Amino acid sequence: MLNLDTDKLHEECGVFGIFLSEKRSDIVNKIYYALYSLQHRGQESCGIALRDGAEMRVYARNGLVGEVFGDDELKRLGDGECAIGHVRYGITAQSDSSNAQPMLFTHAKGKLAIANNGSLTNYKQLRRYLELEGMVLHSDSDAELILNFLIREWLVSNSPEEALRKVMYRLDGAYTLLIMTKDSLIAARDPHGFRPMCIGSINGGYVFASESCALDSIGATFVRDIMPGEIVIADNNGLRTISDHKDTHSNALCVFEFVYFSRPDSVIGGVSVHAARREAGKFLAKDHGVKADIVVGVPDSGIDAAIGYSLESGVPYGLGFIKNKYIGRTFIQPTQENREDLVRIKLNPIAEVVAGKRVVLVDDSIVRGTTCERIIKLMRSCGAAEVHMRVSSPMFLHPCYFGTDVASKKNLIANEHSVDEIRDIINADSLGFLSVDRVSQIAGGYHGGFCIGCFTGEYPCQVS
Amino acid sequence: MLNLDTDKLHEECGVFGIFLSEKRSDIVNKIYYALYSLQHRGQESCGIALRDGAEMRVYARNGLVGEVFGDDELKRLGDGECAIGHVRYGITAQSDSSNAQPMLFTHAKGKLAIANNGSLTNYKQLRRYLELEGMVLHSDSDAELILNFLIREWLVSNSPEEALRKVMYRLDGAYTLLIMTKDSLIAARDPHGFRPMCIGSINGGYVFASESCALDSIGATFVRDIMPGEIVIADNNGLRTISDHKDTHSNALCVFEFVYFSRPDSVIGGVSVHAARREAGKFLAKDHGVKADIVVGVPDSGIDAAIGYSLESGVPYGLGFIKNKYIGRTFIQPTQENREDLVRIKLNPIAEVVAGKRVVLVDDSIVRGTTCERIIKLMRSCGAAEVHMRVSSPMFLHPCYFGTDVASKKNLIANEHSVDEIRDIINADSLGFLSVDRVSQIAGGYHGGFCIGCFTGEYPCQVS
Amino acid sequence: MLNLDTDKLHEECGVFGIFLSEKRSDIVNKIYYALYSLQHRGQESCGIALRDGAEMRVYARNGLVGEVFGDDELKRLGDGECAIGHVRYGITAQSDSSNAQPMLFTHAKGKLAIANNGSLTNYKQLRRYLELEGMVLHSDSDAELILNFLIREWLVSNSPEEALRKVMYRLDGAYTLLIMTKDSLIAARDPHGFRPMCIGSINGGYVFASESCALDSIGATFVRDIMPGEIVIADNNGLRTISDHKDTHSNALCVFEFVYFSRPDSVIGGVSVHAARREAGKFLAKDHGVKADIVVGVPDSGIDAAIGYSLESGVPYGLGFIKNKYIGRTFIQPTQENREDLVRIKLNPIAEVVAGKRVVLVDDSIVRGTTCERIIKLMRSCGAAEVHMRVSSPMFLHPCYFGTDVASKKNLIANEHSVDEIRDIINADSLGFLSVDRVSQIAGGYHGGFCIGCFTGEYPCQVS
Amino acid sequence: MLNLDTDKLHEECGVFGIFLSEKRSDIVNKIYYALYSLQHRGQESCGIALRDGAEMRVYARNGLVGEVFGDDELKRLGDGECAIGHVRYGITAQSDSSNAQPMLFTHAKGKLAIANNGSLTNYKQLRRYLELEGMVLHSDSDAELILNFLIREWLVSNSPEEALRKVMYRLDGAYTLLIMTKDSLIAARDPHGFRPMCIGSINGGYVFASESCALDSIGATFVRDIMPGEIVIADNNGLRTISDHKDTHSNALCVFEFVYFSRPDSVIGGVSVHAARREAGKFLAKDHGVKADIVVGVPDSGIDAAIGYSLESGVPYGLGFIKNKYIGRTFIQPTQENREDLVRIKLNPIAEVVAGKRVVLVDDSIVRGTTCERIIKLMRSCGAAEVHMRVSSPMFLHPCYFGTDVASKKNLIANEHSVDEIRDIINADSLGFLSVDRVSQIAGGYHGGFCIGCFTGEYPCQVS
Repeated sequence: MLNLDTDKLHEECGVFGIFLSEKRSDIVNKIYYALYSLQHRGQESCGIALRDGAEMRVYARNGLVGEVFGDDELKRLGDGECAIGHVRYGITAQSDSSNAQPMLFTHAKGKLAIANNGSLTNYKQLRRYLELEGMVLHSDSDAELILNFLIREWLVSNSPEEALRKVMYRLDGAYTLLIMTKDSLIAARDPHGFRPMCIGSINGGYVFASESCALDSIGATFVRDIMPGEIVIADNNGLRTISDHKDTHSNALCVFEFVYFSRPDSVIGGVSVHAARREAGKFLAKDHGVKADIVVGVPDSGIDAAIGYSLESGVPYGLGFIKNKYIGRTFIQPTQENREDLVRIKLNPIAEVVAGKRVVLVDDSIVRGTTCERIIKLMRSCGAAEVHMRVSSPMFLHPCYFGTDVASKKNLIANEHSVDEIRDIINADSLGFLSVDRVSQIAGGYHGGFCIGCFTGEYPCQVS
Repeated sequence: MLNLDTDKLHEECGVFGIFLSEKRSDIVNKIYYALYSLQHRGQESCGIALRDGAEMRVYARNGLVGEVFGDDELKRLGDGECAIGHVRYGITAQSDSSNAQPMLFTHAKGKLAIANNGSLTNYKQLRRYLELEGMVLHSDSDAELILNFLIREWLVSNSPEEALRKVMYRLDGAYTLLIMTKDSLIAARDPHGFRPMCIGSINGGYVFASESCALDSIGATFVRDIMPGEIVIADNNGLRTISDHKDTHSNALCVFEFVYFSRPDSVIGGVSVHAARREAGKFLAKDHGVKADIVVGVPDSGIDAAIGYSLESGVPYGLGFIKNKYIGRTFIQPTQENREDLVRIKLNPIAEVVAGKRVVLVDDSIVRGTTCERIIKLMRSCGAAEVHMRVSSPMFLHPCYFGTDVASKKNLIANEHSVDEIRDIINADSLGFLSVDRVSQIAGGYHGGFCIGCFTGEYPCQVS
Repeated sequence: MLNLDTDKLHEECGVFGIFLSEKRSDIVNKIYYALYSLQHRGQESCGIALRDGAEMRVYARNGLVGEVFGDDELKRLGDGECAIGHVRYGITAQSDSSNAQPMLFTHAKGKLAIANNGSLTNYKQLRRYLELEGMVLHSDSDAELILNFLIREWLVSNSPEEALRKVMYRLDGAYTLLIMTKDSLIAARDPHGFRPMCIGSINGGYVFASESCALDSIGATFVRDIMPGEIVIADNNGLRTISDHKDTHSNALCVFEFVYFSRPDSVIGGVSVHAARREAGKFLAKDHGVKADIVVGVPDSGIDAAIGYSLESGVPYGLGFIKNKYIGRTFIQPTQENREDLVRIKLNPIAEVVAGKRVVLVDDSIVRGTTCERIIKLMRSCGAAEVHMRVSSPMFLHPCYFGTDVASKKNLIANEHSVDEIRDIINADSLGFLSVDRVSQIAGGYHGGFCIGCFTGEYPCQVS
Repeated sequence: MLNLDTDKLHEECGVFGIFLSEKRSDIVNKIYYALYSLQHRGQESCGIALRDGAEMRVYARNGLVGEVFGDDELKRLGDGECAIGHVRYGITAQSDSSNAQPMLFTHAKGKLAIANNGSLTNYKQLRRYLELEGMVLHSDSDAELILNFLIREWLVSNSPEEALRKVMYRLDGAYTLLIMTKDSLIAARDPHGFRPMCIGSINGGYVFASESCALDSIGATFVRDIMPGEIVIADNNGLRTISDHKDTHSNALCVFEFVYFSRPDSVIGGVSVHAARREAGKFLAKDHGVKADIVVGVPDSGIDAAIGYSLESGVPYGLGFIKNKYIGRTFIQPTQENREDLVRIKLNPIAEVVAGKRVVLVDDSIVRGTTCERIIKLMRSCGAAEVHMRVSSPMFLHPCYFGTDVASKKNLIANEHSVDEIRDIINADSLGFLSVDRVSQIAGGYHGGFCIGCFTGEYPCQVS
């Protein structure tokens, strides 16, 4: 899609589920708004599965929530007591929607719908196992794989949650699951807790969401986070929990959920995402202070840390750029334009703000470095006297195996170059990254651990 | 469209034209990007007309630039030497595209395309005149009307610009015209200069744009503003000007171009729009200062003034809201939701920032007051201790006749209530508007006059 | 579109109008069905204009009736007392819909909608005249031109019909007009009567239609044909007629209306189109009889004459081909296929019927001859012993200036080759055309004259 | 869809497969044309699966061939050596395409695509069996079910055809299968041979098709029919056959393939479908002769038998109706219109042909009788003196379990009423059905047996 965004990491998914004590006509609207608020977690496909008495209906397609769901689609889904939704970012462009979630399955004991955020590290082994049993898989999705194991286990278990408890012993890697059964809604987080998920209450029922901002969007009340390894079941008896997998593995929340993925108005592990980013900006001011006239953030993800830098350093915060808010999926990339122009269509500096100034420019990460270079060039063309780049995360050195799209070291600028070299490449007057030590301190008040494998190469579990 | 936006004024149009010394294949892409950067001036319809040798082609439809123009549409327009584009906001929802511009006409001397930003105050009289001559009009658009006069005058004139010079004596009100002929591109601004237009240079040719941000988007160099009453002609001999109408009327640039309509990165009359808004914020701090812990702006239009308020007052600037950037034209309004939820889907406060704080909340205008009330309610629900509302424009009391959509006093909260009453209605702890005196001072360095009729009821010309 | 059809003549338009004594909710459905039944007269664009009290609404687009009008479009048109509709075949592919009809205009005395079937032979002169008066035309359509004259004349006339009466003195060539005013529906046929139009009654009101099959489709009762040169006005006082132009010119109904354009179930000038075609087949049997085992018609247009040939000759009628009824506008043409295959996808012979037989093959016309050649080749490949081609119209030798798409002699096989040569080219065992004398006799009972200029080169009026 | 068509039986599917000796670029176009020629067998969804070396691609959606496949879709499928296609009629309206075929599956030994025409009578039992093994099914389709058995069997077999041979022992009912593997194309017909399938040769490769008309459409040469119970394998070694299931059950070709489903230009079991229908018409003339002036068929399915009746009786054949060929899926049904009008929009009688005549009206079947009644009413309103109805199939009395959509006795007029009563209901002067004895004689030259269960209630195998 957009060249600017391709220079960022991408999350793969967001999930949302709602279980009500009785059938309501607004359930589908609620989940629609909730998915809108999780759209930043995945823009490739989205879907909603709904249970209406004995029936389940699903609609999932490639596209943004606003493109996939219109009045007609929502009406066809209709009223219900329970629903789950999904937004998805996919690495490969697929012409069909076969990987769109939620997925709805019919099996020996009825119907099930499933939605997942994450990435199994033993997917290939598990898939091979199933295929050799004569199983036929329709997609490349973890969700379908997990479900097949679940169905088989359920045939010899008393309940789907019991079956899930057993299946989780087989699964390695990151997963945040929602499973809608004929009378319950089951949520589960992998034992490392790579991805967040929280519980809310609404209208005498419960909701589960990847981020708390989805609760705000529909007026639900935040209850608590789901713990790593926890299975939570909402049914007509209220909320229950299965904790066999809790505390069996080290906590390893992806630190990029604070740095970039989650929305600033979300709260994870008791900590405001915005506050964590602002804190990162403060650390940058402390560790990489520089004489300057103004601090500006690269919209939107650098704004929070820029404010933090300004607060800590006393250098005034300024509005450095106007972002064109109309550029969307249909925007046509220039092919022969020079690259600076491309950036400028999307992100135009306000010359009056930076002309003649020593500018501290804050962004949340540098992945490939190309956008960064062009932005600094633009700032200089607008008359900036000095440009000091500050990055509110450490150098990105290693691939991620847990659901983001950086699967190899290729294209990671930090992997090929030292800080000084990068500074020269992007033509900054100085360059400072948040240190690895600091990144684990930004979320003061969060008492769990982090996965920082992308910075250190040390992962919380084996990766193939 | 969006309930939040309905509480704002709406500009009616933006125009962009380009005249090159020779046929180029990238002309249509250039105008496409330029229209993207002017999209904020009109979201109902858009269009491009292009001249390719003796031929002219046009494509104009209802929709955003990114919806109307895809690869196919741009390819069909093809290469050319000259092109004009238009984005339009329309007051009434039209099922067809008959008012979309540019409009392309065939007449006795060939083909002409026209695009206009503005509103004639003597439209009805002029239309009646034409109809009684047996003329048939296809649209309700000023552009078609002006063109009909132009064509008739041209039959007895030596050139289209000469004809336009004569026609301008008949036209009252606001207009900013682009006319593409078989060998020239003509730009004209009404003698009051209600709407801005500037000249840029690129690739040995010239561009005309409603705002300078469109020049930046395609790497054009700013040359100068077109003066009120000036007619500028670009053709193969370069740039010429006809000045008969200059200085014949008082300057009356719409002050809302600084306050709200234009993009902050544009420069009008030598003054940065962002700087003018920041200045308005500083005046608010001087004139309506209050003890507070944090200043936050309502995104996106309140941000600039909030930064100004912070700079002047020393109260720290904070990020108060996250705006959902995926909500577009297809968003489905909740019908039974309570209104606070609706605002929250679009604009969620960051509780951590405002909880327990005395907040100065800055926005650029209050038209009906409904959104404002809900935002303050949200802030309080997030724990704000005090909310002090500051508005970076004066009280909006009178209708506008020059191309915005506030045609009557109805629904203007300031027209029905005093400042104190409004403060109570929106439930703010205090409320301060920019004074009428101040509004004319925000654009320091701009030496022309302003139209501030919407604040004072005194208009620069007769209105019917 | 389809290669098979490109070897046929194309009519340019069909019109339909309805005037009711009071507003009804089913008026738009009625016109929708009527246009469906006239679709064969034009497949490029279609439209409906409706009067609902003081308001007029129009919707016209490129596409078939079933593509352009869905539930939403019909609902938006709404209820009304009067409506006119149009289907159009256009010679040139237009990317926009600017020539789609009906056209709706606002003028000094209110609103008017117009729809036309035909082609003015003095279009260029009339257009130049208007342009030199300063008029601006939006389309290349006769309808808009006529309307501009009408509006100007009406300013100095007592009624639109009076104005039309005067305007008709200026118009040369073919036109069949429907004009909807604020209180009447006016129908007019040019003094030669090139194209048919008839009157029907329904629900206490009146309808006008290019063909009587449209009356059948909505259950209207046939009243009579409109005469050449007649102006008929339907208003709240019933039906009136203005006859100044009647009998001022020779009658010249296009004979191809019987031969090919009109639907076989229509009745023109008191004569069934099917009967006329069957009669042509009988003449072929009389004039070009041959020993044979079976007569087959090329679907669909050769069927009627084949039955006539069978009846006259006693040779049994057989079903020779199956036409694929699913092939429509979206069908993708093979590019590397050999041509016989292409025909076969659309029109497969039934081998059992023709194998070993002496076949008389009947079609209505040969324009370029290419399709004909391939069909005969297919018949032989299915084992036909002999193929005797019979054509139920004379040799097509001259261009048509009255609203069909054969504007030049180019590509007319009969213009370049003798009957014997054509027989050899298409590889028939024998070939017989209907004689020019016979073609004027096929519609026994019709007492008017025919235009047979395409066969003789002698046209009923001057052509430029 | 169309009310006229709802009074007919509906076939459920058509299949087509092609295996070439080498990769070709026109394979996808060939299958596109072939599916066009099989479109009459299913109009709800269609699809193509293609093998290109080690890769398989599939595209299947709801819609007609011309709607689902455009240039882009065909290009994306690309070049290949093997492909299978499917058209489908579905009983229930599905909002998604989950039952569209071909279906593409990944399993332990690679990829497989499958397409099927038919209906298993032991579907429920087989599905239950699989589900209790922990299998998860995505659709309600026989094809997916068969494939799951095949995959499991293949894990313990030497080849997919060997696996299929074993699986066929489990399957009851009607099926006509195409299976595309990584190096072969397998076709199979159930041991009763309910549905037809034939073999053709083209470009050194082989094709399999539900009907021979598909062979004609792409210029393939007819080789032979596949026998009931036969498995035929096309691979790089040519054509092989497995005959274990041949002659294990009674032949039971659905007689409606001759009467209505198949295209008249197809040849089944050595017999022309058109000839069989014409023969049925002759039997009607022999068994139910009546004094008459003209014989007309109800388009399109009554035409063949009407010609037969005319040939046998000497009563002249006439063109009785014009069918509106533009009415498609988007046609909007009148809701308040009276029913005669509805029929007339679609099927208008030619009054001239029937007025004052004693008419023999021939159709292929009467299912509910409603359309028949309206058509006769129309004929009388056009002046027909007498209307004698003749039906070229016996009375439809019993449900069909083998892939058509008449699953219950409900709505079958013949089930509730005697011939005399039906004659009175439809208001015919006389009524004659083809006798059950005769129906088995219409396909002279075909030496297999028929399933005539819908007439007799005696089915060739057990039905649940």
